[in-house]
Amino acid sequence: MGAEPAPAGLLERAWINGERAQAVPVLERGLHYGDGLFETIACFDGKPRLLARHLARLQLGAGRLGLPLERAQIEAEVRSAAAGTRRAILKVLLTRGTALARGYGTTGRETPTRITLQYGWPADNGERSPAVRVRLGALRLGENPALAGLKHLNRLEQVLARREWSDPQIVDALLFSSSGRLVSGTMSNVFLVRDGTVLTPRLDRCGVAGVMRASVLALAAELGLPARETELTATDLCAAQEVFLTNALIGIAPVGELDGRTLAVGPLTSKLQHELTARFAAGEGP
Amino acid sequence: MGAEPAPAGLLERAWINGERAQAVPVLERGLHYGDGLFETIACFDGKPRLLARHLARLQLGAGRLGLPLERAQIEAEVRSAAAGTRRAILKVLLTRGTALARGYGTTGRETPTRITLQYGWPADNGERSPAVRVRLGALRLGENPALAGLKHLNRLEQVLARREWSDPQIVDALLFSSSGRLVSGTMSNVFLVRDGTVLTPRLDRCGVAGVMRASVLALAAELGLPARETELTATDLCAAQEVFLTNALIGIAPVGELDGRTLAVGPLTSKLQHELTARFAAGEGP
Repeated sequence: MGAEPAPAGLLERAWINGERAQAVPVLERGLHYGDGLFETIACFDGKPRLLARHLARLQLGAGRLGLPLERAQIEAEVRSAAAGTRRAILKVLLTRGTALARGYGTTGRETPTRITLQYGWPADNGERSPAVRVRLGALRLGENPALAGLKHLNRLEQVLARREWSDPQIVDALLFSSSGRLVSGTMSNVFLVRDGTVLTPRLDRCGVAGVMRASVLALAAELGLPARETELTATDLCAAQEVFLTNALIGIAPVGELDGRTLAVGPLTSKLQHELTARFAAGEGP
Repeated sequence: MGAEPAPAGLLERAWINGERAQAVPVLERGLHYGDGLFETIACFDGKPRLLARHLARLQLGAGRLGLPLERAQIEAEVRSAAAGTRRAILKVLLTRGTALARGYGTTGRETPTRITLQYGWPADNGERSPAVRVRLGALRLGENPALAGLKHLNRLEQVLARREWSDPQIVDALLFSSSGRLVSGTMSNVFLVRDGTVLTPRLDRCGVAGVMRASVLALAAELGLPARETELTATDLCAAQEVFLTNALIGIAPVGELDGRTLAVGPLTSKLQHELTARFAAGEGP
């Protein structure tokens, strides 16, 4: 989670459908409609972290969008791209491919496009994230159960929300839905701790169901910590004793400042972050 | 508005930033985030129809997204692409361009991409649209005032809604928002006539503010017909005596069948369609 975005030079390699390539056809439906999905995968010592969770989410999204998915092929391409890197970020896009007709309709004969991009690891992303500064976003996320949870390519809401601030010390903004529910950051999921219970917004109306979010929920269950998905509002956020963000690259990032309010890094956040780091160090993602 | 989508061969020419080209860089933010806008422009006898309205909407959208827009350049490229065609469809995409950093954030140094695509005119799109069959869509559109009205590249909702039916006799589906308001078709705006008044959904929460919709509202005002934007629901749709669709290609298409219910082509629809066709034939779009 870079405060300053990584320079463009950090794109190191790109493949399209398994071949080294740098361009996509102008009729690509990913471009015209955002008709596709993506995953952002952290790789350490040549290995993609939480790959099974990434592939499962991609498969779920492909099912919802009606995209054919050759999971074994994508897995092989991801493993191949990760191989030989020390630390890298892989971004995988799966789109419906080149349009075979004008307009939104599909013919059923489209061939999906697989794009794999390998980026260098941002200099400031260490093994264990320090406490971060977060703001509250003004933009409200639209609610659509048909798309909720998916990491799809319609990301204008996140682009606009990210344009609300330029202070490089602020790493993310927490966003609410059109009906006032807390959802997530622009590029992270959010957890609260209240009275010993770990809470994270239910994502049945909007938001991306992050792989690290799922890992943290699984880890909490393993550790016997009370944790659940629920509906949360701004009031819940104010009442939280601890707040942390998650994503595939940062793992757990404690929130040390929320919209100007200082927050201590609390015991449950520390415990989860410590245990998560230990699991990953041992090569066992929860 | 082809019942059967036009075959791929109907893409006749493509330009990127004014040069003939067929591919975009893999880091294009239009692909990664749908970070851009588009227009679909009908061209007759070498002239783009309602060009001023298309350019005004593009400019409005560019302002909302924070995209620099060289309007004169785009206008020149559209006119140049239209020149020499008898009937053609131009699709213009304006995106934020190649990503200069990983992630949603922008650097402010991105150079927008202009894509102009020239398609042949679908065989079944005549000068004046016949009555069409329409269904009700199940997918509900998310509500986001920040994006409402814009013809942006986040179109997964429309793609999914279009996947709900395959009957080629049905040309579009009417969609409601997450809060139950009537919004539009997947690729058209919708108008109702009730007791002599022309009504169309207000688009302050979702939907695309179509150029032909604006033309029809302007035409109604010119003709002294009562017409207004308002909040509409399924109940209003049921109570309507006339229903018609609009978009830049079809102009006005009377709805002859709505979800199995037969509708007569009513007097106000006929009058508006007749007047609109006459204005266009005289080279004066309302």
